[in-house]
Amino acid sequence: MSVRLSSTGLAVSGEGSLAQAAGFLDAVLRGLGQVMLQNNSYAGLLFLIGIFCHSTLFGLAALVGTTVSTAAAKLLAVEPDQVCDGLFGFNGALVAIALLYFLHPEGLTWAYVVLAAAGSTIVMAAMLRLTQVWKVPALTAPFVFTALVFLLACARFGRLHSTDVLPTAGLPASTAVEGVVSLSTVVEGLFNGLAQVFFQSGVVTGVLFALGLLVSSRRAGLAALLGSLTGLLVAWGMGAAEPAIRSGAFGFNSVLTAIALGAVFFAFSWTSAAYALLATITTAVVFAAVSAALQPLGMPALTLPFVLVVWVFLLASPLFRNLRAAS
Amino acid sequence: MSVRLSSTGLAVSGEGSLAQAAGFLDAVLRGLGQVMLQNNSYAGLLFLIGIFCHSTLFGLAALVGTTVSTAAAKLLAVEPDQVCDGLFGFNGALVAIALLYFLHPEGLTWAYVVLAAAGSTIVMAAMLRLTQVWKVPALTAPFVFTALVFLLACARFGRLHSTDVLPTAGLPASTAVEGVVSLSTVVEGLFNGLAQVFFQSGVVTGVLFALGLLVSSRRAGLAALLGSLTGLLVAWGMGAAEPAIRSGAFGFNSVLTAIALGAVFFAFSWTSAAYALLATITTAVVFAAVSAALQPLGMPALTLPFVLVVWVFLLASPLFRNLRAAS
Amino acid sequence: MSVRLSSTGLAVSGEGSLAQAAGFLDAVLRGLGQVMLQNNSYAGLLFLIGIFCHSTLFGLAALVGTTVSTAAAKLLAVEPDQVCDGLFGFNGALVAIALLYFLHPEGLTWAYVVLAAAGSTIVMAAMLRLTQVWKVPALTAPFVFTALVFLLACARFGRLHSTDVLPTAGLPASTAVEGVVSLSTVVEGLFNGLAQVFFQSGVVTGVLFALGLLVSSRRAGLAALLGSLTGLLVAWGMGAAEPAIRSGAFGFNSVLTAIALGAVFFAFSWTSAAYALLATITTAVVFAAVSAALQPLGMPALTLPFVLVVWVFLLASPLFRNLRAAS
Repeated sequence: MSVRLSSTGLAVSGEGSLAQAAGFLDAVLRGLGQVMLQNNSYAGLLFLIGIFCHSTLFGLAALVGTTVSTAAAKLLAVEPDQVCDGLFGFNGALVAIALLYFLHPEGLTWAYVVLAAAGSTIVMAAMLRLTQVWKVPALTAPFVFTALVFLLACARFGRLHSTDVLPTAGLPASTAVEGVVSLSTVVEGLFNGLAQVFFQSGVVTGVLFALGLLVSSRRAGLAALLGSLTGLLVAWGMGAAEPAIRSGAFGFNSVLTAIALGAVFFAFSWTSAAYALLATITTAVVFAAVSAALQPLGMPALTLPFVLVVWVFLLASPLFRNLRAAS
Repeated sequence: MSVRLSSTGLAVSGEGSLAQAAGFLDAVLRGLGQVMLQNNSYAGLLFLIGIFCHSTLFGLAALVGTTVSTAAAKLLAVEPDQVCDGLFGFNGALVAIALLYFLHPEGLTWAYVVLAAAGSTIVMAAMLRLTQVWKVPALTAPFVFTALVFLLACARFGRLHSTDVLPTAGLPASTAVEGVVSLSTVVEGLFNGLAQVFFQSGVVTGVLFALGLLVSSRRAGLAALLGSLTGLLVAWGMGAAEPAIRSGAFGFNSVLTAIALGAVFFAFSWTSAAYALLATITTAVVFAAVSAALQPLGMPALTLPFVLVVWVFLLASPLFRNLRAAS
Repeated sequence: MSVRLSSTGLAVSGEGSLAQAAGFLDAVLRGLGQVMLQNNSYAGLLFLIGIFCHSTLFGLAALVGTTVSTAAAKLLAVEPDQVCDGLFGFNGALVAIALLYFLHPEGLTWAYVVLAAAGSTIVMAAMLRLTQVWKVPALTAPFVFTALVFLLACARFGRLHSTDVLPTAGLPASTAVEGVVSLSTVVEGLFNGLAQVFFQSGVVTGVLFALGLLVSSRRAGLAALLGSLTGLLVAWGMGAAEPAIRSGAFGFNSVLTAIALGAVFFAFSWTSAAYALLATITTAVVFAAVSAALQPLGMPALTLPFVLVVWVFLLASPLFRNLRAAS
């Protein structure tokens, strides 16, 4: 996330409040782009359109979350470069979507979302300081920690109501009623895997997300599609339930791992490609593990598997002399 | 905790075993003061009186815990300054009170308390080295980790018996039977929030704790009262159960956060006051989350929410150029 | 683990593929020795014989796991010295044994074991970078994290089947039906404690492991036996169940702690011996705590208690001026 991929974007130079507003809008769009590690406002715009295609509520949530967390960073006087690159926007976007995915959208919920999105900016600053010791990026860890805390807290707060899509606490995952994996499972699962990065679903949304990536970086777009396919095939091969495969649940973390290790942090070589593939396969296993570990709490895995795997593979990489970091 | 607030105290200079004993007593009292981040032996004395007002057992536990952990630090030849400031006492005090709060006070329990209090000194030294990389204090993390380990272990040890005040494992928190929040809920909750910092309750104890803080630092005393009130109001606003609000359960972590961020680690400004308020509100949410997360294990949240929130807000602060550390 | 204990071993100097194969075999045997912190291929050979005495399956698993993780390190071009010392072998050995202990040995399970053993090499490299900030060794943390992830993931994967020796999730540990601790409990428990380091049992295997240690370092062998005895006595004194005591469950983490702190990382003195004893006692308590904490997930404690205790005691040691690191 700390790597600047390109400087293509809508940024307007000049002064005055109009230019400032345009600069802020650019930071918000880049914030949406950074959810898939793209410092590119066109990618962010296509991601936003993809979300609105699936749901107006989540489109608004993404806008509110990114705006609040970016504004909080500005208020607290974070170094402007980091704000402009959208580094203080993507966690707010994801926190807002996740809370509205799991909680009924009442008035108090929106206030809760604003508090959580602002909180994600503080957690991001803390994570940047924690991880700089090892020179690894914070990834979406601030989103994961903030969202889990604000979701878990609802168990004690009588005034927020669940939407019943949270995993049922205590019950073992039924892997019994398996459907048969068909071509439609694979096609839907492939694009749902991309859509799930923003908690969305649907082939149209998945295709728009892929387009956003391709506009920003062809290598990132290709990595994302191969990542989604890899996650799906691992889940299928290990006997995961068909509805979980079709929904893209095993795909979205693998998508992010494939983008990060296949297209962002390493220079291309066959070794680095094999390393990224191993990480992408491992991500599907870690997703299964994290989702089982959080089951007794009734909590979802979110993008924690992606964060853990990419941290481990980046931390390890300097010891492996066959790998070269991206310049 | 690593900040020395003042050097007022009972320390006696001079030599001989009497002076050594007085020095040790001073370190023990400062250790009790450090539970609320006050390096002040008068504050520690008032806290101790407050505990004895509520319960002789817990007063003795606090004395034994602080003495054992301070003596362990002396035996292992920790740098004398840190011992004198009470930095190796406060975790032992809290460990001893917590174990006697949750376990029947039999002979074996006291041996267990001594082992745990000595252990807290080793965990404190380890935490000091871990956290010095980021220049943040260890806070009460050594207490939290030591107490959770020694409480969890009882599940496998047939000879230690629970006092049945541990949260019931596996059962969802009943938020159904809510009483009505009245003025007495607010007044009792306000002072119980202070008393709960040492696992005590009662308005008299809460008032004595507030006096101890005011003697050491008026800003700390004010911050503590406002912190307790904030925690209580957030819990009320979010629909927490009335008995939980009255008991001060949502207050004591907020008290500690308010003292740390409102009166110890930052120079006063309206930005730093707003930052401390945001942290204090967040602490109530994190308390709800941590207590829900530990429910399947039947474990209490202790002061973990305070530790997590203050770590995050301190780690983040150097990136926010509007905040200034206390000189 | 990063301390080189001795350079006795089978390493053959010279060139050509035969010498390379001999060098690789030496690295594999040292990898097995490193499970008990011995950089000594004779120790590794005796450990391997001890495993085969108990079970051919686990003997093969140990060989496959060590070979795969060592080969992965070679492929990724890790610094040769670390590979030769077996630092990239011991986690693979333990991961392979643990997975085959808890999962039916079908074809897919072996593929899963190979993936996990290779993964342990990446986790080891990551842990080495994480822990070098504090100059503490990674110990068996890579094994613990890799094995827990790959075991937890099985809950979502229909094609891997449990061997039913995993702890039953959700049920409280029955401490009710206690047998009486007799001399046979103590003798069997003592050697089972050593055997359990590799998930084995039986007095013969325990004796062979003790011999392997004594060949490498008489101090390590003595520490291991005293460690197993200490863990057993603590468990007995606290009222743990007789079958758990006899099985060595409370011993194997204490064995490893006793070797690490009693015979590897500190120069001998009565203070360091007392420090190691305190750590060994604490390890039995932490084992009880970790095994209770992982019960709701149906996961075993593995060697996590050893890792946590040794990390804390090593991190803390520089603040204790009465302790001296091994030269």
